[in-house]
Amino acid sequence: MTYPRATIVERLQALVGEANVLTAPADVEPYVVDWRGRYRGAALAVVRPGSTAEVAAVVKACAEADVALVPQGGNTGMCGAATPDTSGSAIILSLARMRAVRALDPANATITVEAGVTLAVLQQAAAEAGLLFPLSLASEGSCTIGGNLSTNAGGTAVLRYGNARDLVLGIEVVLADGRVWDGLRGLRKDNTGYDLKQLFIGSEGTLGIVTAAVLKLFAAPRTRITALAATGDLARAVELLRALKQALGDRLVGFELIGDLALRLSRKHHPDSPDPLPDHPWYALIQVNDSAADAGLGALVEGALAAAVDAGIVADATIAQSQEQADRLWALRENISEAQRREGPNIKHDISLPISAIPRFVDETGAALVAAFPGARLVVFGHLGDGNLHYNVAAPDGSAAECFLDHTPEANRIVHDRVVAAGGSISAEHGIGQLKRGELAHYKSPLELELMRRVKAALDPRGLLNPGKVL
Amino acid sequence: MTYPRATIVERLQALVGEANVLTAPADVEPYVVDWRGRYRGAALAVVRPGSTAEVAAVVKACAEADVALVPQGGNTGMCGAATPDTSGSAIILSLARMRAVRALDPANATITVEAGVTLAVLQQAAAEAGLLFPLSLASEGSCTIGGNLSTNAGGTAVLRYGNARDLVLGIEVVLADGRVWDGLRGLRKDNTGYDLKQLFIGSEGTLGIVTAAVLKLFAAPRTRITALAATGDLARAVELLRALKQALGDRLVGFELIGDLALRLSRKHHPDSPDPLPDHPWYALIQVNDSAADAGLGALVEGALAAAVDAGIVADATIAQSQEQADRLWALRENISEAQRREGPNIKHDISLPISAIPRFVDETGAALVAAFPGARLVVFGHLGDGNLHYNVAAPDGSAAECFLDHTPEANRIVHDRVVAAGGSISAEHGIGQLKRGELAHYKSPLELELMRRVKAALDPRGLLNPGKVL
Repeated sequence: MTYPRATIVERLQALVGEANVLTAPADVEPYVVDWRGRYRGAALAVVRPGSTAEVAAVVKACAEADVALVPQGGNTGMCGAATPDTSGSAIILSLARMRAVRALDPANATITVEAGVTLAVLQQAAAEAGLLFPLSLASEGSCTIGGNLSTNAGGTAVLRYGNARDLVLGIEVVLADGRVWDGLRGLRKDNTGYDLKQLFIGSEGTLGIVTAAVLKLFAAPRTRITALAATGDLARAVELLRALKQALGDRLVGFELIGDLALRLSRKHHPDSPDPLPDHPWYALIQVNDSAADAGLGALVEGALAAAVDAGIVADATIAQSQEQADRLWALRENISEAQRREGPNIKHDISLPISAIPRFVDETGAALVAAFPGARLVVFGHLGDGNLHYNVAAPDGSAAECFLDHTPEANRIVHDRVVAAGGSISAEHGIGQLKRGELAHYKSPLELELMRRVKAALDPRGLLNPGKVL
Repeated sequence: MTYPRATIVERLQALVGEANVLTAPADVEPYVVDWRGRYRGAALAVVRPGSTAEVAAVVKACAEADVALVPQGGNTGMCGAATPDTSGSAIILSLARMRAVRALDPANATITVEAGVTLAVLQQAAAEAGLLFPLSLASEGSCTIGGNLSTNAGGTAVLRYGNARDLVLGIEVVLADGRVWDGLRGLRKDNTGYDLKQLFIGSEGTLGIVTAAVLKLFAAPRTRITALAATGDLARAVELLRALKQALGDRLVGFELIGDLALRLSRKHHPDSPDPLPDHPWYALIQVNDSAADAGLGALVEGALAAAVDAGIVADATIAQSQEQADRLWALRENISEAQRREGPNIKHDISLPISAIPRFVDETGAALVAAFPGARLVVFGHLGDGNLHYNVAAPDGSAAECFLDHTPEANRIVHDRVVAAGGSISAEHGIGQLKRGELAHYKSPLELELMRRVKAALDPRGLLNPGKVL
């Protein structure tokens, strides 16, 4: 049985209640614009189902009416994956009402949550059980776990705990035809056929709609140390990472790189910031945690940093002596994005490389950019422990930043060509969405694109799930 | 262009050299029987390509001739996945000659190896660079990394390091039509479209043939402690696991359960074994490692075990005082499989459950089995830290073990019904192969089977890769 497109809104109202089908422009507005205001789309309606059964009914109704669906979590993505196109022919499927913590099993160290649970609520639920859910992102107050899984989110603890994908044991997915695949298993080993959940994680809602997940929990840290180290060049920063991995093992949770200009911008726009190690070209912000309460972590970190100073790897270092000092060191890193926003537009890249390839990449790419755009300023920071750089190109001092953005395609080509040549990725943690769809088509091998299209055709043959994203 | 089936052996000889195409029965014999002698098949030939290009040429030639391929690594699997059927119409594709370590990148903590590298050689290559490749299995001297990835192998360090899947950054795969997908990326973050490598890992050679991989390396442990703890019941063993995770965090690398009967069999058939904690119903063999050389690990483990004794969780415990003592404790666990073999046939199950569900499962399933088979003896051991039990049912003392095996279907139903009812898996780490294909069809939801078949059809539409396995 099929239904005419015109009646889809009425059908959806019957399925989830009129209050949960938004059509008034003012109601729809927050859903059709991404949070940075870079993408604006249009939608037939925004539907907000409150249960997996309702999601399934909505998807089935849309499939029957041949209406496309754009799933949306907290609408905090960086690549426009949750924003529909401008045709106004799609339905936005918001998972925001699905926010139950369905179960927490301390002995199994798992939590089962619905897609609309925000990351912060999830972290808090784990903490209340004395456990840790380690995924941590700038947007954690508003991003949802459904979006985190659909984009395979990264963040600041990947070095130790992996990406969102690595934290998932099972998922529940509404398929393109509205059937529900119950893959909500809380098992650390399960080799019964193909690992289907992997298809849906990171596929940005183009293969199915994640409605719930079973996630791993970890021992909560009971000792935390934050340090800042200054190094003379990137090769030494890479060497420091290696030395700390050996000395600290799994205690090393975060290793964030901050370039000189990134730090200066952070401090310029947040004048209360500390300046503990002035005038070095590169900094590493180091987070070391231990689940043991009293296992000599301070001495271990001090010893490792002292050894790095003695070896000439580190020029200077400081260890936070209180949680407040630690927070202030972390603020230096966390304020960079906001500082850049205040400083004016810049051309952003979210890239990853083999960690060993980063020093040469940064040297050569920086030189090529400055040759192409004299005076261009490089704001380089990111998760060095994961090989992930936020590599941003700002306009020369005094020039019009808006005009500089016109050079985005040329700058992208300079950066991404070198990323790909070095075996890297043009999207480390932000995904593809609509922003990088062209770049994906440009850089991926035809064979890899063909394989992706075959997977898409196998799971969403009519192309109704998040069309125009990724592929 | 297609070639008649009759000429395929000649074509393969032309592609890889006559010496690398085995057809004489004596040469073929070791490849058509699995190592335990449970499966015997037949093959047109065994072909042993020496490079990815040769694998690709072989697969292309077989595709053109409509000849099925059975990939084989070290032929150490437990489920007959690498053994062809008895028709003699398939080619066995042995990856054993592809044993180059292509690269080791210490700063990126990655190693790139070909599929035929044995796990022990890979571990050794990592160790020589001062790093750790943590996958560890009983068959590590002869199993190959290609097989480990194709079966998503588990083993004794999953608690800390995950399954084989979790150790992979990139793979190279020969597809069903002979094209090569180069996914050999050494990146810890890469969100550029669907994560295709996940499809091939754990698919037992039914979707593509893994020819090489980029794998994660870790800081090598410099302190190791092995302990044995005795507990009065399984609920306490689960509680001990939880307590040790909190006290030791990532230092807890292994937590192996040994049931009383499993330990007695191990000791009976290996008379030199120690008997450090006699007469308890359950034992946990505990491995704790630290990459730091001197960070008070001994005191930490002693404190954690003493606290568990004080709390009534542990009845008695012993900590190995030397590497030799540690090896002897580990031998208690490692000798169980061989002891069982000597004791006579038994009905084996490789299952996993949410860890919290294990005590009740073991109680209820044991009671059901003993009710169905009076006097049946349960040999229960395994990787409790991963929720993975090797749950084996031996004939009553004095009865004919061979006859008892006739009850396998009935015993499987008793065990697997309860596994599935408790949210568990009927194959935790050994895979499906041909052994559990019927059980998979019995227990998986029709929807999940349909999704797997769609994936199979998308990647191997003609069904030439390892037919009759998994699905």
